[in-house]
Amino acid sequence: MKKKMPYNVAVVGIGAVGKMILKVLRTRNFPIRNLKILGRTSREIDVEWGKYNVEAISPDSFNEIDIALFAGTEGEKGAAVIYGPEAIKRGAVIIDNGADFRLDPEVPLVVPEVNPKDVKRYKNKGIIANPNCSTIQMVVALWPIHKELRINRIIVCTYQAVSGAGRDGIQQLENELSGKEATVKAFAYRIAHNVIPQVGSFQEDDFTTEEWKMVRETQKIMHSDKIKISATTVRVPVYTGHSEAVYIETKKSIKVEQLRQLLASSAGLKVIDNPQENKYPLPIDAEGKDEVFVGRIRKDPFVKNGFWLWIVSDNLLKGAALNAVQIAELLIGRI
Amino acid sequence: MKKKMPYNVAVVGIGAVGKMILKVLRTRNFPIRNLKILGRTSREIDVEWGKYNVEAISPDSFNEIDIALFAGTEGEKGAAVIYGPEAIKRGAVIIDNGADFRLDPEVPLVVPEVNPKDVKRYKNKGIIANPNCSTIQMVVALWPIHKELRINRIIVCTYQAVSGAGRDGIQQLENELSGKEATVKAFAYRIAHNVIPQVGSFQEDDFTTEEWKMVRETQKIMHSDKIKISATTVRVPVYTGHSEAVYIETKKSIKVEQLRQLLASSAGLKVIDNPQENKYPLPIDAEGKDEVFVGRIRKDPFVKNGFWLWIVSDNLLKGAALNAVQIAELLIGRI
Repeated sequence: MKKKMPYNVAVVGIGAVGKMILKVLRTRNFPIRNLKILGRTSREIDVEWGKYNVEAISPDSFNEIDIALFAGTEGEKGAAVIYGPEAIKRGAVIIDNGADFRLDPEVPLVVPEVNPKDVKRYKNKGIIANPNCSTIQMVVALWPIHKELRINRIIVCTYQAVSGAGRDGIQQLENELSGKEATVKAFAYRIAHNVIPQVGSFQEDDFTTEEWKMVRETQKIMHSDKIKISATTVRVPVYTGHSEAVYIETKKSIKVEQLRQLLASSAGLKVIDNPQENKYPLPIDAEGKDEVFVGRIRKDPFVKNGFWLWIVSDNLLKGAALNAVQIAELLIGRI
Repeated sequence: MKKKMPYNVAVVGIGAVGKMILKVLRTRNFPIRNLKILGRTSREIDVEWGKYNVEAISPDSFNEIDIALFAGTEGEKGAAVIYGPEAIKRGAVIIDNGADFRLDPEVPLVVPEVNPKDVKRYKNKGIIANPNCSTIQMVVALWPIHKELRINRIIVCTYQAVSGAGRDGIQQLENELSGKEATVKAFAYRIAHNVIPQVGSFQEDDFTTEEWKMVRETQKIMHSDKIKISATTVRVPVYTGHSEAVYIETKKSIKVEQLRQLLASSAGLKVIDNPQENKYPLPIDAEGKDEVFVGRIRKDPFVKNGFWLWIVSDNLLKGAALNAVQIAELLIGRI
């Protein structure tokens, strides 16, 4: 990016992810000249560390903005579908947390630990897409393995937190657990004391949007459409922190202890894997942390080059806000 | 079994499973002459439909008993390890819900929908073993597929209810959700708002006891040690109802619609699978029901003969008490 520090930054949308972006920009001390927060209506919002003024979004809100981080929705679509073109016209680069542009071949889909160079392709359309939460944490863990051993195949089952559905998801679980009347319906069924094998809506071959995202986004980020990926995605009554049981088959062989070392020395990952002391990653421990945690690293005794991993990360941080801000840091040449 | 109806029956242990056995014996109108309930101490217990006297267990408790259903534990072991020999010596046939005898080659391990004929092998040692809860519901769903198409491979991730750890598991979740002090520790960590990728204790190759049960018990029940099975078993904050995301590969091909029909017409199964109306099995719906529910039946678009199933059942009923009583019904020639 040619402009010089500091930057004029806009954050669009102030739901669970938008608020987390504000927090991450602040804690990482992102070089900001002016910060604009754009929402449906003008108002003041409270966050842990103070107050912000929210400006009612309009095309001219993007005048002078260098980087616009989109985290809002307009019905089924992300806010970037409506306001993105106006922001780009005014010279902003968009980092979009929505799903609308992720599979556009002209738009880079970036996880900094995996495909940082793709960020340069923002010039094509002025947009960089931030991947799906479940996909991000999986590729951070699988990329070092793929580089070293080539992954042929991925079978994954998820255990996804309600905050993945934003504030409404959190509210529904809170209401149900406290016995309040269910006014908020983020999920098709009760989530308290339950698990729901549906994240998103049903698409071709009866796989859900979330299951297809894990297939197609992973292939795009890892630059490999040959990896066979199949997913079952499930919502669980956890507030924050997605967990994934991931089974992989690799082309080359490796001993499980070497695999553990490979993961422990890779960017963005922390290995917690000591079965003798019952140590493994848990979503309650991952909340508020930046890393992707990996444990339960095992070799399938019956299948050549078959391995299990248990991957956990904060879905609002690395799964959304942190990855978006890291993309912005790549963009300004900071990382 | 040579003796004639009705029978003298003993139920050993009155935890979550023992109480459920009493209920199932009653609702299925099992032909009982005398019913003895055996526990550590003599006392009276309340159940929904009345009161029972519990007798303090001793070897002579089994005098005149025809069938003894064991659901108790003595430390790490099932009560059948201590009292089983005494019961058998006195002529009782044991149906054991514990894990101690399941893999003994002389002891049949029975799921009536799968291997009913094995029940006759009770004569070897006087014991029939009731399988692990996660295994039972999986084999009920997979057996008709295996018979028709041969299953080569199973990869399974579980979402297991706290009642699988008995009354203490239920109590821990209740205490944690109500903010009470954590006096009961059925699990290594907090289970409220969390998922724990450990069911049982860690064994060889860093797989847990539960994960190995799903491998070895499934192979024994289906009489096939060639099926490659690999599992990750996870505890979730659900009171009752285990769920499983099961990926299989079959030898022969089938269209997904035919697979759905095959399952819908098989014993003990109920298919709930209408993605267009967001219909699939849920643990909250399975509680109190006898069936094994199957949904999310999909063909993997990228792998020949690869399929997903989502299998849910009440872990205290078909996963434990109901299957044990069905074994007793097989034994007396009732089913």
